[in-house]
Amino acid sequence: MSDHSSQSPDSSPEAIFNATSDASALAFDGKRDTRRSFVARLSALSMAIPGVGAALAACSGGAPNASDSSRRPAGQSTNPAGQRPARGLPNPDSRLDTIHHTEHQATTLATGTANATYRRFDPTLPALPRERTQQIHWRSQAVPVRISPEVVVAAWTFEGNLPGPIVRCRAGDTIDFTLTNEHEVPHSMDFHAAQIDPKTAFRSALKGQSVSYTFKPRYAGAFVYHCGSSPVLMHIGSGMVGAIIVDPSTPLLPAKEFVLVQNEFYLAAPVNGAHPFDYAKMLATLPDYVAFNGRPGQYQAEPIRVKRGDRVRFYVVTAGPTVPCAFHIVGEQFDTVYLGAPPANAIHGVQTFNVPAGGGMIFEFVANVPGEFPFVNHGFGHGQKGAIGILIVEE
Amino acid sequence: MSDHSSQSPDSSPEAIFNATSDASALAFDGKRDTRRSFVARLSALSMAIPGVGAALAACSGGAPNASDSSRRPAGQSTNPAGQRPARGLPNPDSRLDTIHHTEHQATTLATGTANATYRRFDPTLPALPRERTQQIHWRSQAVPVRISPEVVVAAWTFEGNLPGPIVRCRAGDTIDFTLTNEHEVPHSMDFHAAQIDPKTAFRSALKGQSVSYTFKPRYAGAFVYHCGSSPVLMHIGSGMVGAIIVDPSTPLLPAKEFVLVQNEFYLAAPVNGAHPFDYAKMLATLPDYVAFNGRPGQYQAEPIRVKRGDRVRFYVVTAGPTVPCAFHIVGEQFDTVYLGAPPANAIHGVQTFNVPAGGGMIFEFVANVPGEFPFVNHGFGHGQKGAIGILIVEE
Amino acid sequence: MSDHSSQSPDSSPEAIFNATSDASALAFDGKRDTRRSFVARLSALSMAIPGVGAALAACSGGAPNASDSSRRPAGQSTNPAGQRPARGLPNPDSRLDTIHHTEHQATTLATGTANATYRRFDPTLPALPRERTQQIHWRSQAVPVRISPEVVVAAWTFEGNLPGPIVRCRAGDTIDFTLTNEHEVPHSMDFHAAQIDPKTAFRSALKGQSVSYTFKPRYAGAFVYHCGSSPVLMHIGSGMVGAIIVDPSTPLLPAKEFVLVQNEFYLAAPVNGAHPFDYAKMLATLPDYVAFNGRPGQYQAEPIRVKRGDRVRFYVVTAGPTVPCAFHIVGEQFDTVYLGAPPANAIHGVQTFNVPAGGGMIFEFVANVPGEFPFVNHGFGHGQKGAIGILIVEE
Repeated sequence: MSDHSSQSPDSSPEAIFNATSDASALAFDGKRDTRRSFVARLSALSMAIPGVGAALAACSGGAPNASDSSRRPAGQSTNPAGQRPARGLPNPDSRLDTIHHTEHQATTLATGTANATYRRFDPTLPALPRERTQQIHWRSQAVPVRISPEVVVAAWTFEGNLPGPIVRCRAGDTIDFTLTNEHEVPHSMDFHAAQIDPKTAFRSALKGQSVSYTFKPRYAGAFVYHCGSSPVLMHIGSGMVGAIIVDPSTPLLPAKEFVLVQNEFYLAAPVNGAHPFDYAKMLATLPDYVAFNGRPGQYQAEPIRVKRGDRVRFYVVTAGPTVPCAFHIVGEQFDTVYLGAPPANAIHGVQTFNVPAGGGMIFEFVANVPGEFPFVNHGFGHGQKGAIGILIVEE
Repeated sequence: MSDHSSQSPDSSPEAIFNATSDASALAFDGKRDTRRSFVARLSALSMAIPGVGAALAACSGGAPNASDSSRRPAGQSTNPAGQRPARGLPNPDSRLDTIHHTEHQATTLATGTANATYRRFDPTLPALPRERTQQIHWRSQAVPVRISPEVVVAAWTFEGNLPGPIVRCRAGDTIDFTLTNEHEVPHSMDFHAAQIDPKTAFRSALKGQSVSYTFKPRYAGAFVYHCGSSPVLMHIGSGMVGAIIVDPSTPLLPAKEFVLVQNEFYLAAPVNGAHPFDYAKMLATLPDYVAFNGRPGQYQAEPIRVKRGDRVRFYVVTAGPTVPCAFHIVGEQFDTVYLGAPPANAIHGVQTFNVPAGGGMIFEFVANVPGEFPFVNHGFGHGQKGAIGILIVEE
Repeated sequence: MSDHSSQSPDSSPEAIFNATSDASALAFDGKRDTRRSFVARLSALSMAIPGVGAALAACSGGAPNASDSSRRPAGQSTNPAGQRPARGLPNPDSRLDTIHHTEHQATTLATGTANATYRRFDPTLPALPRERTQQIHWRSQAVPVRISPEVVVAAWTFEGNLPGPIVRCRAGDTIDFTLTNEHEVPHSMDFHAAQIDPKTAFRSALKGQSVSYTFKPRYAGAFVYHCGSSPVLMHIGSGMVGAIIVDPSTPLLPAKEFVLVQNEFYLAAPVNGAHPFDYAKMLATLPDYVAFNGRPGQYQAEPIRVKRGDRVRFYVVTAGPTVPCAFHIVGEQFDTVYLGAPPANAIHGVQTFNVPAGGGMIFEFVANVPGEFPFVNHGFGHGQKGAIGILIVEE
């Protein structure tokens, strides 16, 4: 955390997740301040389309983009529009908003960009552990992740990857989870499979600190996990997402099982070879890339493979932050889509179903036909940005 | 209504909702004209991304934003691109499009902006009236509504608030409804719980006139109501929305029940302290704020409270005009989500489900865990703009 | 196809749908290259909102919009940012991306724009053929289509219309399908009702060539069909969409049945009287029009008619490419919405349900009330752009 924010008395993890005061300030009021100045600028310039402010500012030689703190020098205490924050109002400069500085990110990546090797993310659902209690200890880290041969992002991660590791357990199992934060930015963990007080369990850890909690997933299903620190949009949008798959007590039919976590990338210009994430673009909801498992188009280059006759089960989790996944497999139809907890809550004979951001659904079919089947986000204005893969059904 | 439009022979309420001719002209052709001129301008300027026209126009000193009639002087009869409308084509200047002038709105608010006090909207579902017939008489009014301590909007409302009052009844009850319009703009009422001829029942009332109709809700559920006058996008987007909750004949399980109406705000620069709504921004679908019950983040500052062990039921209605609500409660899961009429049509074990604009669903769970649980639109590019609240489960 | 791309050794239909290499290059890498140059340009210009690049470029006298190949002279072999493609990387200039030139489209329409007559698209579901095997032979053609009295688009079509013909059959019937391509751009056919190897069956045909395949729909429902050639976004977005309706073995209740295919239009400035489609606007997901059956607002001008007491069944197919359809009928509620294959997989008592892009659902109700009922996409930021029609229930 940069100097002036770490000195702030209310930047402790507890304060950061104090929902009735600080959470409000961080999650919404920081944004409100941004929007207020944004509207003010719009007014001055006699135009009114959000997201276009930056273009106009650039044209007119005006102020830099209000929401893009990445170009503001660290420690500068004016708000984005260059005004002093009003007394008694939340000051987005005093806390988390200040930690998105490009300088900051660029200098605190745990490893060098040159070491970021492109690796396909294995979508295979891990085997179900025999143990009914799992000890999971993860680190939150800022690391460069190569999401394509040409593009490296300055990601905020769980365990150095985007998405984080796939967790698998049964309904009723015990997960003993610890997060140790190795990053200057406070981070936390929100498992959608947990029923637990988020104020305590999902609180933020400062650098060097840890947060631990225990939960027993009640419902089976495909659940998102993500960093829940404010502003959540920034933490989800910067890569701190993944999937926890919870099996029902009575196992589902045997199948070849895969996990697809859809996320979007909103990128700023590269700094030292790595693209920082751009909060203003996240608010404008116009992503540069949309990917399954963090690498746009990776399963086109290196497809997923099954055998003819296999039952195939996709656990589709939409991490977001915003774009839904209209999941479809070209040349196939799903015999079963679980909208809620399996093995109930299913519909049958489905070409495409929508998984909302923050949601997960399970899609299955029997691969009776050999061939090469693209699986896609059929909302192609988004899907064409990288949410396309290939499933090969071998004879 | 401004002079030249009130003199138009076809601006009577009947003509306004004459679906086969006027509705077409108002609902779509007005927009088409706007788009045509927009495309023409794009062509002249050699660029082609919608929503960027205004930025470019501002850069080049070109024409004002075609769709933003708020900057056109009242009574000016050219269309937005400065062309005379073609003969035989609908003329958006002759009717409702002309009534969105900023000047008009700014001068016709029923009360002064200074009197607009910030008040949390009570989300509690009202008690079910004992009577099986309800007489409801509402007024449509333009009033300033303070949606946050700093922001006042020049809202079009039912009964002076945004959203309007929550209505509750049983399936089969009788609702005798009357709307009296106190605003220069024609308004109407479309209850999604009604099965009725909209051409008659949902017709527009001119200022000083009333419209009455009677309906008996057939299906239980959480239904939207909204002004249905053309262009509907403008009337929904300006605040004329709310919820009608219809109980099934056999009551659902006892619960603490709350109503959340999600809406978006698309704001122009303030006039006399109040932001008019901006139709061009509505068409660009990039909102400034997204809120539950009309105040961004209000339930962060003043949470909703229940007791441990309570069954909690949220009636979630997405008024829109456009953004869906991927409803989720951090740290909890829904045991039941009703996709259609309760008590049937439910799925179970759900982390997040999507309520489309113009739709409503019912979400419930038992608050077994004490703590502070944020409820959110998990499409965080939208949710971060204010669709975040806190549910406190007290010991 | 323009000279240099037709000479490309890997532009054969087989190569075009070689999923593990070419499909990757075409579907995603072409886009990636665009995005890379886009980000590079953003960096140079110190701003970072996608979609605004063009506005800024226009302001600053910079490069034309990277993704808008329509303004690049045919045959120019640099990539959009003016750089030579890196060795070993896919070159979007070598293949399909080059065929979107405005010049190209404008000169290859099969018929003149002046001959494009405005015609309402008949939404009536065709009668079920008695034969259990249907021979279908269609042509893919570029033709001008008049989508409103004033607007002509340079559409890519199946059988010269947008959407293409409605197909109807029973589950288990046999469809013998042949596509003959009469257009310089390679095209293909992806029926969502087919379970078949897309690499073979949905492969692209060059001009003058044909592709044939046979399939037996397994599930009943309302299915999309569309051209599956890369980039799919461009082919769907340019008009190559339609619906195939599959009846269940046991017929549904007798009804007046209609098919609505929702699509979006992203238009560039007209060339010789017809608007080419604009790929950059498709990627920005901000449509100019949204329509049922290819003509914005057509069923306002010329409504759909049924009689009081009729059961009414709408097969709603969202072709996209991106915008979902929050389907609603003003003044009515659906007694049944089929989320999956009918006659099962239904929910009841529904005001609005969301049909995702690439999906289809069936909506029905009994028209007990006479009157004029608008049917809409209730996501009105989209619906207001033309996805509004009128259903008249006659006494």
